[in-house]
Amino acid sequence: MIRLEGATLLTPEEECPQGVLCIDKDRITYAGPADGAPAAQPGDEIVDLPGRAIIPGFVNAHTHLAMQLLRGIADDVALAPWLTDHIWPVEDRMGEDDVLAGTRLALLEAVASGVTAVNDMYMAMDRVAEAIGEAGIRGVITQGLIGNADPGRGKLRVGTELYERWQGGYGGRIQVALGPHAPYTCDPHYLVEVAQAAKALDARVHIHLAETHQETRDLAAEGRTPAHVLLDSGLSEQPVIAAHYVAPAESDFALLEGMRVGIAHCPVSNLKLGCGFAPVARFRAHGIPVGLGSDGAASANVLDPFLSMKAAAWIAKGSTQDPTQLSARTVLRMATHEGALALGLADVGLLAPGFLADVVVVDLRAPHLQPVFDVASALVYTATARDVERVYASGRLLFAEGRHLLVDAPEILSQAQRAAQRIAQRQILS
Amino acid sequence: MIRLEGATLLTPEEECPQGVLCIDKDRITYAGPADGAPAAQPGDEIVDLPGRAIIPGFVNAHTHLAMQLLRGIADDVALAPWLTDHIWPVEDRMGEDDVLAGTRLALLEAVASGVTAVNDMYMAMDRVAEAIGEAGIRGVITQGLIGNADPGRGKLRVGTELYERWQGGYGGRIQVALGPHAPYTCDPHYLVEVAQAAKALDARVHIHLAETHQETRDLAAEGRTPAHVLLDSGLSEQPVIAAHYVAPAESDFALLEGMRVGIAHCPVSNLKLGCGFAPVARFRAHGIPVGLGSDGAASANVLDPFLSMKAAAWIAKGSTQDPTQLSARTVLRMATHEGALALGLADVGLLAPGFLADVVVVDLRAPHLQPVFDVASALVYTATARDVERVYASGRLLFAEGRHLLVDAPEILSQAQRAAQRIAQRQILS
Repeated sequence: MIRLEGATLLTPEEECPQGVLCIDKDRITYAGPADGAPAAQPGDEIVDLPGRAIIPGFVNAHTHLAMQLLRGIADDVALAPWLTDHIWPVEDRMGEDDVLAGTRLALLEAVASGVTAVNDMYMAMDRVAEAIGEAGIRGVITQGLIGNADPGRGKLRVGTELYERWQGGYGGRIQVALGPHAPYTCDPHYLVEVAQAAKALDARVHIHLAETHQETRDLAAEGRTPAHVLLDSGLSEQPVIAAHYVAPAESDFALLEGMRVGIAHCPVSNLKLGCGFAPVARFRAHGIPVGLGSDGAASANVLDPFLSMKAAAWIAKGSTQDPTQLSARTVLRMATHEGALALGLADVGLLAPGFLADVVVVDLRAPHLQPVFDVASALVYTATARDVERVYASGRLLFAEGRHLLVDAPEILSQAQRAAQRIAQRQILS
Repeated sequence: MIRLEGATLLTPEEECPQGVLCIDKDRITYAGPADGAPAAQPGDEIVDLPGRAIIPGFVNAHTHLAMQLLRGIADDVALAPWLTDHIWPVEDRMGEDDVLAGTRLALLEAVASGVTAVNDMYMAMDRVAEAIGEAGIRGVITQGLIGNADPGRGKLRVGTELYERWQGGYGGRIQVALGPHAPYTCDPHYLVEVAQAAKALDARVHIHLAETHQETRDLAAEGRTPAHVLLDSGLSEQPVIAAHYVAPAESDFALLEGMRVGIAHCPVSNLKLGCGFAPVARFRAHGIPVGLGSDGAASANVLDPFLSMKAAAWIAKGSTQDPTQLSARTVLRMATHEGALALGLADVGLLAPGFLADVVVVDLRAPHLQPVFDVASALVYTATARDVERVYASGRLLFAEGRHLLVDAPEILSQAQRAAQRIAQRQILS
């Protein structure tokens, strides 16, 4: 058994100062005040953590991990030319090894930032599954399906075969979703076929939806709305993760209430690409879980959940001129349990008995974090990814005091740098 | 002489990889390619810095440093109750020792983040001057003047005496401005008196201006605009630092062109308090220098210039839905030289011969920063304050590899924690 003692725990109900968290194998067995904790047993590993906060591992609800290799390759560019002139041509030259190298690099950043679950859409997803498996965290993986470039449905087959090969892999740490990329890259017939395939597998769906106001205007010109796309195609008969969703139609909110939809809000990417502000408070008022995603590092530049939390809180307040929107505690919940719910990971994201032991220790003692009057405020508005001291996933210690314990970080870094250099020099043969 | 070698320099014109920066006493004597650098001399201190970026020290163009003690004391609250119910009552109980303790704590964070110049408005400013002096950086300091609570003009005298006592102090590192707090706390007659005092001293003016849309609407109801406040009072006959300025009147832009006004844009504070988005690109298009400020840690929670840069870029793009607004390079310039210009520090903020040697080394080698295709992008969109490795001000090394070299950081931290605890417990006698 592992006993983490002396830190402030953020349990579902409250902040618990000087709390105790017990981990047995891959589950949390106790999280609460010291005086209610089970007695320590001989052989227990006891870790004393005064001045720290203990929180659930972060859930990055929408990523393209391998795009880590493209970080900073094109900034300050509009979305359409960013995709067509910069990103897609480079991605066309990326091979499976590059996807592996980029995903491994991304997971170094993610794990060191306290991320213990990701929802990733990309290509060469077998390599992504392997990288997530070896990193020790959990992931929902999705082959991105550009329906308009999939005439023979070969990609759709890749997506369904991925499900058959990986669903439940690594002891349940890998889940697989089907991933129609977006309404503007998949025609309605294709979406119906994906919906049928998802239903046949009972798989979750992961889709970019209403990523820009223009996308919603284009749908409106055809008499459709983003939520209608899910309904009309049959996609909404399965649980759906809708990424971005900055521009719902007014009628979408009521429609979404009847679906099993979770939203992956990506505030950093949305801001940087000038896509707009998702109406997070309205979604949540309709009972729709909203998690936080980074998007890929090519648009967001970082996978840091602390930055996603800051950006989510700031923009919710800033865009409504209402500073009471999205309190620190709400944003922390979105970044952890609510994101897990959006991904269908019901036993992830809370410090409570029976939950998977995905646990992050944040050191709050440094001058740049002091004083701490409110731990949730310190975590959301002040702390950075670099203040993460320990990361456990499924009860296993992955990262401690700046070192990755499961993977060879220097080797991953050097392989990724070589891959990035090849890509930049356009020397990859497709 | 100090020679920094092997890093990428951000000089005014370009990125210079494998550059050389030479410092002689308090000035930069060379910044550029290695092959144009003066030959190293015996006795030179040579520092090899491969994989790093060297940039000018950051200028925090609007702070209330001592509010570091109030970090996180009240979040997610509207501006008016935040001030009247939370901040002002606590500030009333703060003594000079608390101001000193809070300012010292703030300067630990600021210096470790690469900030080498601040523009601070608060009370008990003699203590602030001492803290800035001992920290080794430079500062413009201002006694905040709440005109509506200064019937006998005692505070105005405190402000002018501060000028007489400290202007040019610590070998020129301290400058003093006169600080009418804001149009809504200083009636027009008071502003005229401050303007006369500023003119008599030839002092700069530091004022909160158009911090909310409501403030601008209230002025409009009296037939005034923010820029007219400066003009009508005579304040604009002196150089003015206008903090926040989220809500200019349309006619302000043309008026400001004729003044010596610099703007301290505080994107984190403006977002978090839901105050609106300053039209930075429009100000800059009118030739008005715009620096970046944090505001106090009670509203912004951090003094981190890397977060201010991110927030400035994000919100400029997000609020206009134009991702080409405020490029990484522009934001870096705002955070350094443009902020210095706004403060009247003409020889600060560029890596160029003759400029003061305020220099920051950022380590870009860690996995969370790699790959680096563009150094300006990496610095603005990816790097964090914790990636700062070395900080020089006036050629003196203040911070290196996580350690403060001029001040006793543990002692400052513990004094500040005690002061914050007293404040929270409301045990301070006023």
